[in-house]
Amino acid sequence: MTPPADKIYTACVLIIGNEILSGRTQDENLAYIAKGLAQAGVVLKEARVIPDIEATIVAQVNELRARYDYVFTTGGIGPTHDDITSECVAKAFGVKWTLHPDAHKIFLSLYKPEDLNEARLRMAHTPEGASLIANPVSRAPGFQMGNVYVMAGIPRVMQAMFDSVKPTLKGGPPVLSRTVGCDLPEGTIAKHLGAIQLRYADIDIGSYPFYRRGSFGTSLVLRGREAQRLETAAQDVAAMVRELGGSPSFE
Amino acid sequence: MTPPADKIYTACVLIIGNEILSGRTQDENLAYIAKGLAQAGVVLKEARVIPDIEATIVAQVNELRARYDYVFTTGGIGPTHDDITSECVAKAFGVKWTLHPDAHKIFLSLYKPEDLNEARLRMAHTPEGASLIANPVSRAPGFQMGNVYVMAGIPRVMQAMFDSVKPTLKGGPPVLSRTVGCDLPEGTIAKHLGAIQLRYADIDIGSYPFYRRGSFGTSLVLRGREAQRLETAAQDVAAMVRELGGSPSFE
Repeated sequence: MTPPADKIYTACVLIIGNEILSGRTQDENLAYIAKGLAQAGVVLKEARVIPDIEATIVAQVNELRARYDYVFTTGGIGPTHDDITSECVAKAFGVKWTLHPDAHKIFLSLYKPEDLNEARLRMAHTPEGASLIANPVSRAPGFQMGNVYVMAGIPRVMQAMFDSVKPTLKGGPPVLSRTVGCDLPEGTIAKHLGAIQLRYADIDIGSYPFYRRGSFGTSLVLRGREAQRLETAAQDVAAMVRELGGSPSFE
Repeated sequence: MTPPADKIYTACVLIIGNEILSGRTQDENLAYIAKGLAQAGVVLKEARVIPDIEATIVAQVNELRARYDYVFTTGGIGPTHDDITSECVAKAFGVKWTLHPDAHKIFLSLYKPEDLNEARLRMAHTPEGASLIANPVSRAPGFQMGNVYVMAGIPRVMQAMFDSVKPTLKGGPPVLSRTVGCDLPEGTIAKHLGAIQLRYADIDIGSYPFYRRGSFGTSLVLRGREAQRLETAAQDVAAMVRELGGSPSFE
């Protein structure tokens, strides 16, 4: 069945790793995936960060893959005892976790037989029926199982994996954005900005205050799928800033 | 009723804002809250990032406040149309959203009457029964409603709010951590590290690979609540690294 032309494709990012929840590691993957999904016309509806606990991973994967068109996981696919994402995805899908022949070949080419120990061979296992996601950085692959894309946690590796997946995603038109800088504080423009938002239901207008060189200002970010409409809305926002005595800037 | 001495206090962070899900803004608040909760002996079980959509915020606040001892939200408490967290928390609790007398006083002291417009007055509203969380940076307060702590999204403001809340949280003993640096790749140590983890069920051992100056290494992070036990486990990890031909370092 062909999906309707105006179908909205949705996604969730599932960040798996105690190191993010302990504050040891600052996640960088979400922002990267978010930008890529906007380009692919896929709406990122939610992100979650969860620990390396089997029951949690299995339950969340099943909840999220039913709810969204795409689920992207990061983290937990290395060789150590805390890397359990791959097995958990197999459990979530109710399939065996088995040696993937193509992944096995990759590891056979990477290691001498005596170095290809049990821990490293774990990384050549996937849920049965998964297809591999190439890892041009350190070779150990990720995989796709149904609508779930399982990727590494290390940003450089994750980015390479996501970049190879991105062109294969079905999405709507890319989400475009336009930013109008404003040297007035949020409280001054709020009412008028709200009125503009009401006139442009198809454009998402975000307001982000900042404090620079001793004064408050606001970045106004407009996001939408039609370039001309976005431009018109941005010009309306700029005109509103001027009317209130400010100087808008296009960033 | 007094909670049992070994009660584990749990928390969730709920990051509210389209700007995080669009990739425009890199979240910094999660890592800050995570570190503070570890110091307070509260276990951060999950974090979620959701958009500025009323139905989503209300549903998630209600799901999470029932599941965890504490919920910390960030974002969405400014004066513009996309700042809807406060009203949504009132809806989640099924209470009125009203002008908070103490917050009103703060805004009366901040603005001349002609500048205290409707948008700014919105920021003086809270769910009925909420208590304020002070904002020493830009004054507009956050609030606590039941076990839900509603804080700003701007990191400097959020940090000040969280710092004032942290001493009031009930928690267990602080979670301590110890990091052993290792100049061997994960695949070499995985089996032996897993065996150590099995011997220390009360210590959470994480393994984080890195690539520096042309070779692979691993940071081994041990987390637990008993200092002596943690030290013993860290020494076991270091001894394991030495046995495998590496040079452990304590970071």
